[in-house]
Order: sequence, then C-alpha cells, then structure tokens
Amino acid sequence: MHMEDMVKAPALATDELTRRLSVEFPEVWNADSGLAIDKVWWGGCHLRQAFRAQSLRPGATISGATIMALGDYAVYVALLASIGWEPLAVTTSLNINFLRKPGRVDLLADCDLIKVGRRLVVGEVTIREAVGEDGPVAHLTSTYSIPPQP
Amino acid sequence: MHMEDMVKAPALATDELTRRLSVEFPEVWNADSGLAIDKVWWGGCHLRQAFRAQSLRPGATISGATIMALGDYAVYVALLASIGWEPLAVTTSLNINFLRKPGRVDLLADCDLIKVGRRLVVGEVTIREAVGEDGPVAHLTSTYSIPPQP
Amino acid sequence: MHMEDMVKAPALATDELTRRLSVEFPEVWNADSGLAIDKVWWGGCHLRQAFRAQSLRPGATISGATIMALGDYAVYVALLASIGWEPLAVTTSLNINFLRKPGRVDLLADCDLIKVGRRLVVGEVTIREAVGEDGPVAHLTSTYSIPPQP
Amino acid sequence: MHMEDMVKAPALATDELTRRLSVEFPEVWNADSGLAIDKVWWGGCHLRQAFRAQSLRPGATISGATIMALGDYAVYVALLASIGWEPLAVTTSLNINFLRKPGRVDLLADCDLIKVGRRLVVGEVTIREAVGEDGPVAHLTSTYSIPPQP
Repeated sequence: MHMEDMVKAPALATDELTRRLSVEFPEVWNADSGLAIDKVWWGGCHLRQAFRAQSLRPGATISGATIMALGDYAVYVALLASIGWEPLAVTTSLNINFLRKPGRVDLLADCDLIKVGRRLVVGEVTIREAVGEDGPVAHLTSTYSIPPQP
Repeated sequence: MHMEDMVKAPALATDELTRRLSVEFPEVWNADSGLAIDKVWWGGCHLRQAFRAQSLRPGATISGATIMALGDYAVYVALLASIGWEPLAVTTSLNINFLRKPGRVDLLADCDLIKVGRRLVVGEVTIREAVGEDGPVAHLTSTYSIPPQP
Repeated sequence: MHMEDMVKAPALATDELTRRLSVEFPEVWNADSGLAIDKVWWGGCHLRQAFRAQSLRPGATISGATIMALGDYAVYVALLASIGWEPLAVTTSLNINFLRKPGRVDLLADCDLIKVGRRLVVGEVTIREAVGEDGPVAHLTSTYSIPPQP
Repeated sequence: MHMEDMVKAPALATDELTRRLSVEFPEVWNADSGLAIDKVWWGGCHLRQAFRAQSLRPGATISGATIMALGDYAVYVALLASIGWEPLAVTTSLNINFLRKPGRVDLLADCDLIKVGRRLVVGEVTIREAVGEDGPVAHLTSTYSIPPQP
C-alpha cells in the first residue's frame, strides 16, 4: 500500500469534499463533530477526530464507537476522493482490532484503499493518537459497495 | 445460541444495570442518546436505539456508525449482565456485516454471548428494525477482554 | 435465522450438489477429504468434516485452517443450494471467532444464510463437535460475490 | 508497520523455526505442503506457499481455504519469531478480505505484527502472487492468544 509515496491526484480535492459533505451529510460533517479531512489523494486520506469529552467511556479512554466511526468515515472519504462523488456508497462489512487504549487526545486515521473495483472498494485504516510515539490505537478494514450505475 | 429458551437469571438486573451505566458511562447512557436496555439475562440482552434524525446519512438511512455502536453496546451490556459489574472490559475486535438499509425507525439489537471465558467474552448480535417483518439490518460479532483480576 | 423451522426446498438437492461438486471441484470434494454434505435446504446446510490426523496442530487439537475451510465451504454449499449452480461465486470476506479447542472428533457446520442478494450472499456458520454437549468450537460469517449474469 | 525498515533480531531464527515446526507441527510443515519460511524478524515474517494443483477451485484459481491457511500460519510464525517458542498459541479471531483471484502461481505472505501484548498478538498479512506486479490477492488480520505462563 503506502500510496502516499506516489500520490495521484484525487477525483475530488479536500476543500470540495469537505464542502459537499457538509451540505449532504450534515449530521456528521458539522462544526461540532470534531471530524475533519486533513488530506486526500487517489487511493487514500488522512482524517482527524478532535477530542471531545462526550466520546469518553469508563477507564478515561475514548469509546470504541468513536474509533469505529472515524475508521468507517476514513474509508468513505478515501472512496469519494478516488472514484468521485458517490455518496450512496454503503459499508457492507467492517472489521476492527483495538490495539491500545487512547488517552484524552485527538485521533488520526490514515486510510489506504487496497482494492478499488467497479462494485466493491476495500480500505485499510490505522488509527493513532495525534500526539506521542506509541503504537497504533486500532486497525480497521472495511468494504463499501458502490451503487450500480444506471 | 438462543438462550432465551432457557433463560438464566442475570448477575445484574435491567434496572440496576441501567442505573449504574447512567452514573458511570453517562456519555452514552443518558436520556438524549435514545439507547435503552429492554431486557437482560445470563448470556444475552435486548437493546433498543430510538430513531434520531442526527443518525441519518445520505440515502435517508441510518448511519453504519450508529448501527455499530448499538451492536457494540449490546455485547457490553450482555457481558455485564452475565459476569457482573466489570465496566473496564474493552472491545478487542468487532466484525459487522450490513445486510439491508434501515428506514427512519427504531432499531433493536438481540445479543447472545457465544463464549463466556475468564479472559474473553464473545457475543453475536442481530440488528433489525423495530417495526416491519423484513430481514435483519446487520449482524455483528465482537470480543471483549476482561481485565485481569487483582 | 434458524430457517430450518420453515424449511424451503433447495434449488439443488444434496445428491445433485454432491455429484456436481465431485466433478467440478474434485480437489476438495473427494473421498479422501472427509468433507460431506449432510443436508441442504433453501437458505442453509449442514456439513460434516470427518476427523483426520493430518488436520491436527500442536496441542492435540484440530487446526484453525481446517475449521475455517469447513466454514467457508458451508457457505458455498448453502449458496449453491439456494441460488442454484453458480460455482464461480467467490468469497469476498470472511470472519471467524474460535471459541474452544476441539478434540480428535468429527466437526459439524450448521450454516444459515442471513442475506441472499443479487450480488452478495452472506452466511453465518456455527461449528461444533459431532459428539458431546459442549459449546460451539467456532463461529464464522462470510460473504460471497455472485458473478454478474451475462 | 513496515518494521523491515528497522529490522530487529528474531527470538528464533528461520532455520531453527523451520526445524522445530517440522518436528512439532509436521501435519503442515512437511516437504509436501509447499509452505516455507522465507525470512523472519522481530515483529514479522515472509512466508511462501508453492503452487499445488490440489489447491485449485472452480475458476482455475487458488481456493480461499489455501489463502486463509497461509495467512494464519504467517501470523503464527511471526509470533514465534517474536516472543519465542510458544507453539500452543492459538488463533482467537481472523478476518480476511479477498481482493483479486490469483493465478496458478506461488503465493507470498508478508506479515507484520501490529500488537505484541502479554496475552494477545495481532498480525496483519498481505498476500500477493510471487510473480507479476498486480495488486494484492488478499489482506488478513488475526489475533492469537498466548497461553498464560505458569
């Protein structure tokens, strides 16, 4: 993977993606959610989830639900950045391994698409803390189904 | 599975679990989240997620993140109902298959634990719409790690 | 799940499926493999894997690879029994949780399809020992992609 | 991941691992299986599965069962190379995405461990054809449980 080494231009740039998502998926892509696109390219993206106290769970760590959502959205953004505006693409399966409990900090999601097919797109995401040098917090793969073209 | 056929008493009853979660995990277990425990028993539970407009995603369906969170919490509640109050149990892995897009309705999660070990608990969850007779919306399995006892 | 309660006739019966598989997939469906179809219906099947010493791994238990293969084939057989002879259907993803180490005995796979779509079929499999009353050995879900029809 | 960039010495070298596996896990690690360790280091390994006609499935491609077994053994070998001889470590969960149908060629598995804990080890494996420059055939993650130390 690691397509960053040979970055290809995305089908939709970061600003354009952010703008469209805020219009058509405002439930998640709003100023309060703390979710932001740091960078996109053909085949991947970097997302950031700002720390929010409401994401905590017992043990003073960030909930798994928050981490899963971040990973799922990372594959969605990488897909849109690669095949263009297909907002009705939906997750068909997702698998996540939680590796280490994060602290009260922002999270970063590094996503690479490992398959870009006509019907299915598969992405891999490593989630880590925005500060510090410890190992990854979680690793996720998920598959999106692209609606048939009319 | 289908332990309901021979229901065993839970280690913690529904009211007690709801009360403790609202105190120690208020970020999720609050009146606004729409999440509620319908029933618990040794080895499983029924959860309900009330429909909320903020859970929508493009296509007028409920976001995968909402569905995953519901499934993850179902295994957490079934675990607490079975082994007792271990709020620091954490998800180590989770896998979900999305089967059908739900409409704008409440969701129900039916959880059965398929392993209750000393270190790991594995649960299986079927998520369906609270109304209607269509097939399941999603199927999820996840594993929780129980903290070592001192 | 548990469609056995209202069994529908399969598209291909057990004998016919066994015959076709032995002709077109002889690498696995041969007398030496120990794999056999016990029963099929629309939406599911029962497979059996006879114990073979060559399936052992350290700890005097059956290898995970043997158990995964059995589960994968169970979904394949259930798919063929349900949508008819589509031997080029391929697994797109598979997830398995190993719950308990089996002994030196035959294994049974109980498969129910939880989605039968035009493009994707999703199955759930519980694997258990053919003798004894202990809990399941493994639980698996997998998704098959059906080739587009010409 | 990509720990190869800063390779640490393994706890057990390739020759020693190959020798021990052939003695204690001869069902898989024998001359006929076509499975071989190309390289190990602390935190990962490279395995090779020689092409064998008996691994074919309909569509003139290699069976998913063969690919899953290769990935599972890659994490096992990487674990042994990293924490030392713990042959009773067992897979607790495994997830695989199949990305592309391989041809009649050898397969390579590149494994990196993404968590090496006291109780759990998590590995990530990319499987590709030994010849050609096409994308990966499959991507797998799996978790092994390490037996408690006496």
